[in-house]
Amino acid sequence: MAEAADPGAPHPRPRDATLSPRFAQVPTFMRLPRVEDPRRLDVAIVGVPFDGGVSNRPGARFGPREVRSESALCRPYNPEVGINPFDHLRVADAGDVDTNPISIEDTYERVEAHFEELLQADCVPIAIGGDHSIAYPILRAMARKHGPVNLVHFDSHSDLWDEYFGSRFAHGTMFRRALEDGILRSGGVLQVGIRGQLFDAGDERFGTEHGVETVRIAEALELGPDGLSARWQRLAGAPVYVSIDIDVVDPAFAPGTGTPAVGGFASREILALVRRLRELPLVGADVVEVSPPYDVAGVTSYLAANLVYELVCQLALRARGREG
Amino acid sequence: MAEAADPGAPHPRPRDATLSPRFAQVPTFMRLPRVEDPRRLDVAIVGVPFDGGVSNRPGARFGPREVRSESALCRPYNPEVGINPFDHLRVADAGDVDTNPISIEDTYERVEAHFEELLQADCVPIAIGGDHSIAYPILRAMARKHGPVNLVHFDSHSDLWDEYFGSRFAHGTMFRRALEDGILRSGGVLQVGIRGQLFDAGDERFGTEHGVETVRIAEALELGPDGLSARWQRLAGAPVYVSIDIDVVDPAFAPGTGTPAVGGFASREILALVRRLRELPLVGADVVEVSPPYDVAGVTSYLAANLVYELVCQLALRARGREG
Amino acid sequence: MAEAADPGAPHPRPRDATLSPRFAQVPTFMRLPRVEDPRRLDVAIVGVPFDGGVSNRPGARFGPREVRSESALCRPYNPEVGINPFDHLRVADAGDVDTNPISIEDTYERVEAHFEELLQADCVPIAIGGDHSIAYPILRAMARKHGPVNLVHFDSHSDLWDEYFGSRFAHGTMFRRALEDGILRSGGVLQVGIRGQLFDAGDERFGTEHGVETVRIAEALELGPDGLSARWQRLAGAPVYVSIDIDVVDPAFAPGTGTPAVGGFASREILALVRRLRELPLVGADVVEVSPPYDVAGVTSYLAANLVYELVCQLALRARGREG
Amino acid sequence: MAEAADPGAPHPRPRDATLSPRFAQVPTFMRLPRVEDPRRLDVAIVGVPFDGGVSNRPGARFGPREVRSESALCRPYNPEVGINPFDHLRVADAGDVDTNPISIEDTYERVEAHFEELLQADCVPIAIGGDHSIAYPILRAMARKHGPVNLVHFDSHSDLWDEYFGSRFAHGTMFRRALEDGILRSGGVLQVGIRGQLFDAGDERFGTEHGVETVRIAEALELGPDGLSARWQRLAGAPVYVSIDIDVVDPAFAPGTGTPAVGGFASREILALVRRLRELPLVGADVVEVSPPYDVAGVTSYLAANLVYELVCQLALRARGREG
Amino acid sequence: MAEAADPGAPHPRPRDATLSPRFAQVPTFMRLPRVEDPRRLDVAIVGVPFDGGVSNRPGARFGPREVRSESALCRPYNPEVGINPFDHLRVADAGDVDTNPISIEDTYERVEAHFEELLQADCVPIAIGGDHSIAYPILRAMARKHGPVNLVHFDSHSDLWDEYFGSRFAHGTMFRRALEDGILRSGGVLQVGIRGQLFDAGDERFGTEHGVETVRIAEALELGPDGLSARWQRLAGAPVYVSIDIDVVDPAFAPGTGTPAVGGFASREILALVRRLRELPLVGADVVEVSPPYDVAGVTSYLAANLVYELVCQLALRARGREG
Amino acid sequence: MAEAADPGAPHPRPRDATLSPRFAQVPTFMRLPRVEDPRRLDVAIVGVPFDGGVSNRPGARFGPREVRSESALCRPYNPEVGINPFDHLRVADAGDVDTNPISIEDTYERVEAHFEELLQADCVPIAIGGDHSIAYPILRAMARKHGPVNLVHFDSHSDLWDEYFGSRFAHGTMFRRALEDGILRSGGVLQVGIRGQLFDAGDERFGTEHGVETVRIAEALELGPDGLSARWQRLAGAPVYVSIDIDVVDPAFAPGTGTPAVGGFASREILALVRRLRELPLVGADVVEVSPPYDVAGVTSYLAANLVYELVCQLALRARGREG
Repeated sequence: MAEAADPGAPHPRPRDATLSPRFAQVPTFMRLPRVEDPRRLDVAIVGVPFDGGVSNRPGARFGPREVRSESALCRPYNPEVGINPFDHLRVADAGDVDTNPISIEDTYERVEAHFEELLQADCVPIAIGGDHSIAYPILRAMARKHGPVNLVHFDSHSDLWDEYFGSRFAHGTMFRRALEDGILRSGGVLQVGIRGQLFDAGDERFGTEHGVETVRIAEALELGPDGLSARWQRLAGAPVYVSIDIDVVDPAFAPGTGTPAVGGFASREILALVRRLRELPLVGADVVEVSPPYDVAGVTSYLAANLVYELVCQLALRARGREG
Repeated sequence: MAEAADPGAPHPRPRDATLSPRFAQVPTFMRLPRVEDPRRLDVAIVGVPFDGGVSNRPGARFGPREVRSESALCRPYNPEVGINPFDHLRVADAGDVDTNPISIEDTYERVEAHFEELLQADCVPIAIGGDHSIAYPILRAMARKHGPVNLVHFDSHSDLWDEYFGSRFAHGTMFRRALEDGILRSGGVLQVGIRGQLFDAGDERFGTEHGVETVRIAEALELGPDGLSARWQRLAGAPVYVSIDIDVVDPAFAPGTGTPAVGGFASREILALVRRLRELPLVGADVVEVSPPYDVAGVTSYLAANLVYELVCQLALRARGREG
Repeated sequence: MAEAADPGAPHPRPRDATLSPRFAQVPTFMRLPRVEDPRRLDVAIVGVPFDGGVSNRPGARFGPREVRSESALCRPYNPEVGINPFDHLRVADAGDVDTNPISIEDTYERVEAHFEELLQADCVPIAIGGDHSIAYPILRAMARKHGPVNLVHFDSHSDLWDEYFGSRFAHGTMFRRALEDGILRSGGVLQVGIRGQLFDAGDERFGTEHGVETVRIAEALELGPDGLSARWQRLAGAPVYVSIDIDVVDPAFAPGTGTPAVGGFASREILALVRRLRELPLVGADVVEVSPPYDVAGVTSYLAANLVYELVCQLALRARGREG
Repeated sequence: MAEAADPGAPHPRPRDATLSPRFAQVPTFMRLPRVEDPRRLDVAIVGVPFDGGVSNRPGARFGPREVRSESALCRPYNPEVGINPFDHLRVADAGDVDTNPISIEDTYERVEAHFEELLQADCVPIAIGGDHSIAYPILRAMARKHGPVNLVHFDSHSDLWDEYFGSRFAHGTMFRRALEDGILRSGGVLQVGIRGQLFDAGDERFGTEHGVETVRIAEALELGPDGLSARWQRLAGAPVYVSIDIDVVDPAFAPGTGTPAVGGFASREILALVRRLRELPLVGADVVEVSPPYDVAGVTSYLAANLVYELVCQLALRARGREG
Repeated sequence: MAEAADPGAPHPRPRDATLSPRFAQVPTFMRLPRVEDPRRLDVAIVGVPFDGGVSNRPGARFGPREVRSESALCRPYNPEVGINPFDHLRVADAGDVDTNPISIEDTYERVEAHFEELLQADCVPIAIGGDHSIAYPILRAMARKHGPVNLVHFDSHSDLWDEYFGSRFAHGTMFRRALEDGILRSGGVLQVGIRGQLFDAGDERFGTEHGVETVRIAEALELGPDGLSARWQRLAGAPVYVSIDIDVVDPAFAPGTGTPAVGGFASREILALVRRLRELPLVGADVVEVSPPYDVAGVTSYLAANLVYELVCQLALRARGREG
Repeated sequence: MAEAADPGAPHPRPRDATLSPRFAQVPTFMRLPRVEDPRRLDVAIVGVPFDGGVSNRPGARFGPREVRSESALCRPYNPEVGINPFDHLRVADAGDVDTNPISIEDTYERVEAHFEELLQADCVPIAIGGDHSIAYPILRAMARKHGPVNLVHFDSHSDLWDEYFGSRFAHGTMFRRALEDGILRSGGVLQVGIRGQLFDAGDERFGTEHGVETVRIAEALELGPDGLSARWQRLAGAPVYVSIDIDVVDPAFAPGTGTPAVGGFASREILALVRRLRELPLVGADVVEVSPPYDVAGVTSYLAANLVYELVCQLALRARGREG
């Protein structure tokens, strides 16, 4: 958390929905203030509107906008874990990275620079994607700040492919790149919810060779929150980044995504898992691959907004622990 | 049940879908006759098309129309509980209350008067909402007929807030009003499926003080139908009203609603619970908060139609018990 | 225009879409800055998210949000009339009025107070509705500032009904109220595009008696921009308010509205008319009745955004005239 | 008109939308009473929910239901032609024909029998389709009552094909059948709005040989209401049936249809034409091919409801003429 | 499997999505080659686009087209069961049967003839519906080739009704027909997932009399894959046909269907069941009742595509067994 | 036209919709054969599924698939111009270019190479986009074959911007590039339908300097087909390429596009214009910017399919002229 934070300054608060209707005012995340200076924040919610890395349906460029809109329905106090995170942390909407819609390479530079700035201000960024390819420049910035990090990765796909159309960068390759670059710790990756077909039996080789621990969906359901939490305890020794591809959830619960995979988690299952992340020293997170043009009644965006909120709560629980 | 009912008169029957196609004819509930005089009925299905009490998405004013349309797919015999309710009860579509779209106060008067009339004819009303605020005037009418009643309340929200924009009436405050007024019995409220964020840790205080028993979603899933049924047995000593907010179900199963909450019941779970309500002396019920503009392929309306049908079956099972 | 405006201060500008993608950043109107203090503005774009006055489909409460989102596609320079309005006027997004979703009366007070504040700062407000009922409190504020005003009213409905469900306030009665109150000048109302059925042959009597000039759709098409402009010249002697109900346009061009009327203008026809309003001394305007839940691909919101932009251009053309 | 009609009995009236909200009550056409006995009616609005004759998209089976729902927005008085048709004619919703979804042949028998009954009661039926194939059995019933009739046919397709998959009955062949059978008068068919591709240059031969007068869309637009009215005057010497395939209108105005054709009428153009039909001795009419699953925001159903209403007005104008 | 297959010829392969984007090229099933001659195939994927047998919502005629489109997202290797089916079997898209949209009888003849041809070429057909009525002519062809077959039937409805509108053929009667005709083996039918209302308590009599084993949804969930697999072992002594009505899945997971039934399987549950079918000697299968006009974001079509793929894998597992 | 074409070989024909239903079989364009070898063709319909050049809504990558699907409704004979183009030209579906979803530069190379191959086979390519950026590599291939070409460009945007996010390639810059490169003839560009805002008054300078003739929408409507045709006669002296951005049409008629512009052509207006292109020596064409995720009921794709068909007819009319 930002050391320089003035503990006396009032914390940003979501607009009160009993005085200002949920559908009113410019839709920032949870209708928190839009704060420009990350040094005033412990946690920065930041959009990364980009879908130039996708292999199937685009639309994730509109993810940040719609997740913000639907987040207006979230109230501040979390009875599941007994905390109002805004009591403990200064959280606000930090706007979007201005991506380049035409170039993944230029976008990567812009995202990396943007997150470096956030991290230098000592705040924890939570990114709203955008497609999953954006995790790579974020991780680069993370590694520059924290050194190599561990990763808890919720997804139906392992995203460890090598190339896509000859490109090293795409929404299915970025964790391989990050492992190759050493910005993810070897042996420090846990993947949860993986399922669906592969191109080839050999697709899993790279992961195996790099110590990636894969918990496929059936095993994840058997383990449950307790079992999975036991698995990720081993990652607690280093900074942990969390990446949630919304397609880890079943298309019934998250139709608004680009490369859906049948047979995933129910919403309540993913929520229960995320609520156990307080056990890890999180330094950043993302919720990605929400594609609003394919959504219905905003259910996917609304679920994503809740996941972001729950991530904020995990950070707040640790902050409260430190306070106490 | 209506004492004055002529037991020799033929019972109303749904139109036979093997002779008149489901998509034909004016869509009353289950294509039952439209009966004006409640004295000819044991159970009256009545629409309350109103959404002037909502805090987020409107649209529930179209709930009765669409629930009726989708109900055409329901067949009369229920193999799960072994009954054709129309053999045992005179059930028909009693039309809608003519609400006032501009005024919640005037609508409340209209709803209360309308339900009083139904209750004076000794029939059991099952309301199709409309937003949840309509439960208050219905309960007022109930209390005038039966005295204070008990409540089994399926919802993701407790609806026990005090005020909304300075108004005492809204879709989040009506059960507090009813408890304050004494039309709900103190200690006679059981809430099932509650989840999601609150505005404040103190939001639950009123309920606690008034003996409201809250079974949050995780506990409800653990208890299951048997466990929950055991809980509501204690309410069987007084007349019981059942109120089902469709948002108790997960948005995947019921996207067409105004204030969804992630992480709810699956359809089959809520159906199993409702099928256990025969154990209670029901005097009325509602299924509310279906907002068709946000629905997809009518799935929410169709689920609501099934819930109404299952409620009718619960009444019929008790009637059959009395017959035998 | 605001006399106190510091002519040296830089004008607010829409975010440059060649540097910041259209889908990025929190969606204010045209991605202009969000300015709190109206004294810094000549024109304030202000949302009035309210649909408690509607008689058919609700949803206009989401109008401001979606009109803002779609406005991201508008570029600043208008080649049709040869102006970049932001060169001549200080225009920004002034946020929303915090309406009361449950009460039209309280909302009216809030809207009137909010617009009075804007008007006292000497800026010209352009409201994004919300349903049409919001025009009444805006006109009240207008009259307090400017005395009774003239009205150019684009609509399929005359909105001169007396009561709706016993209420004097609704989205079909507000111009009768304003005429009764004397806040609209007698003989100072011109209605364009009226069509569709009435309840009764006598429905038009009030308008006739109060000197309302009605140009039904067929006549409006015959007159064209030149003919209509000739008609509204007579209103130029007093301050003019412009009210555009999006349902003046045909449902093919504006499906996202609550009480559509078949047989209306094409988009290019309404745009041509609005581009002639520079001839009038505008003191305020609204674009209302956009109901996003019924829209498709944002076409209605996008059209409304263009109408707001064209209104800004009309103001800028007059300002440039004064400059020159 | 029904000779036996008791002129003293009160005419059925649409429910008053200022007392009963448009979205309330079971949706009959314009919320008129549902009248079982056609002898009590001058005009019977009757649904024919069938789409077993379509060659492309189905869904017209839901046409009557949705046209009824959207008709709730129609008010009773028509200022365009200065009449409240319900003052002059007894009009009500006569329900639907119970079609057979599996068999076009059996459906034809059911439709023909149903319309014969209506016609024997001396009332004028206006059918809401259903696909266009239903016009054939209606015309058979017409011819039995009135002898061969003339036809004004608004459509993008001539529907004069011979066979479809070896079947003589389909939604593209029924007017050829009717001409072959002599139930349409040779030389008594006028087709308006025809456009789009054909299978073969010879497709038009049958029409030519049978004196069918075809006004293609470009010519129809040039002629306008006056010119077309001049054309159909020659049909006034015999009973006239009017058949309106909604696809005569452009897909922008009527997306909800099964075999759309680009380049059609705007809504205001078709309305203007239909308003000139008072010049003809109408004995029946249909509005067909509304396919709600492909509609958006009900615009197609709402347009169809208006066309039905305008047809009723045409009948009322003639009835008023007879009265006076 | 086709005896005459040249084992040296290269197997058809899905187009490689890392070289040819998923959204490119004409959408055959999984972008496999379109092969005309079934003798070159072990498994033929064949569309049967017909919905003339439905009692509620049509649209299944577009099932094959959309299932093919969504199948582009399936990759070839199945890690759940450890196989790339295209290594072991020659699988391709065999196009569609040219059905007759107007006549179920003629369609039945066309389907039966088409499948006979496929079966004479010794390939295993997997049909993509189309409504469920198409299973009857397929079974007729099956019986001609293999003699009476056993049936594993996943569905919410038993489809054992006798007649529908006097017709012996419809999407709810075909398995009764097949049992009556002796093309399904008496005692050889296992139904899984049955639920929902019936017309009458007697509806189940025919099934009982013909030894149909019915596993209703609650029991199926209790049994799980192991328990159900134990049940269907007894069918392994004769050729087995598998019929999957997509409505066996809950509408949340498969909204795009014509006669949905609340309370069904989750996607992951049906997938787990289908993955156990390798234990049976499959001679054909169908996946039916996908109705794209009611789907959202293709989730139903995509699930159906996965089910077809998993069926292919079951065949491949047995083929590999024979190889080894 | 391909000189080497064997005039005796039978021409490819669309599948006959009276024998094979429109919704059956793999959806090639108009259900023409899929022909691999362009030397067998006079006209090649070719998809270019790419949307990596867009600045607002993506989705055009699905354009070719959906335009093909909707084209099934087009019949072969064109009564407007009196021709069956398939009698005079060998036309077929030539599949798609395998674009690279991640890289506009690599996609450009692939498109250019693909079209060079088509052109070397002496066939006329008609491209279905894809976003408009694909016109650049097509024009490069054109110029290599034919030398610099003239351009008739239907669009709401002039697409003459210089850079987008520092990139020289995007869907708003390609015609500037083509003019700079000399592959479009200086003075040889006619733009029709231009409208909407610009970034700056200077945006039009490049066009003016390069002799681009711009007919804005209002002027285009005034000129009509005759007037516009007179304008483009001057281009007939060199090979002409036609580029139709679907957003030249109003969003009411073409909602499914990425950067809509209000106030455009009606469908019948653009059709009338395209039908006059026979007067020009066309060497290729494209119809671009159809974005199916934003379409409703396929109306945009269906309009685009008709435009492609009409372009084929223009080529056929010239071919017939040469024959005769």
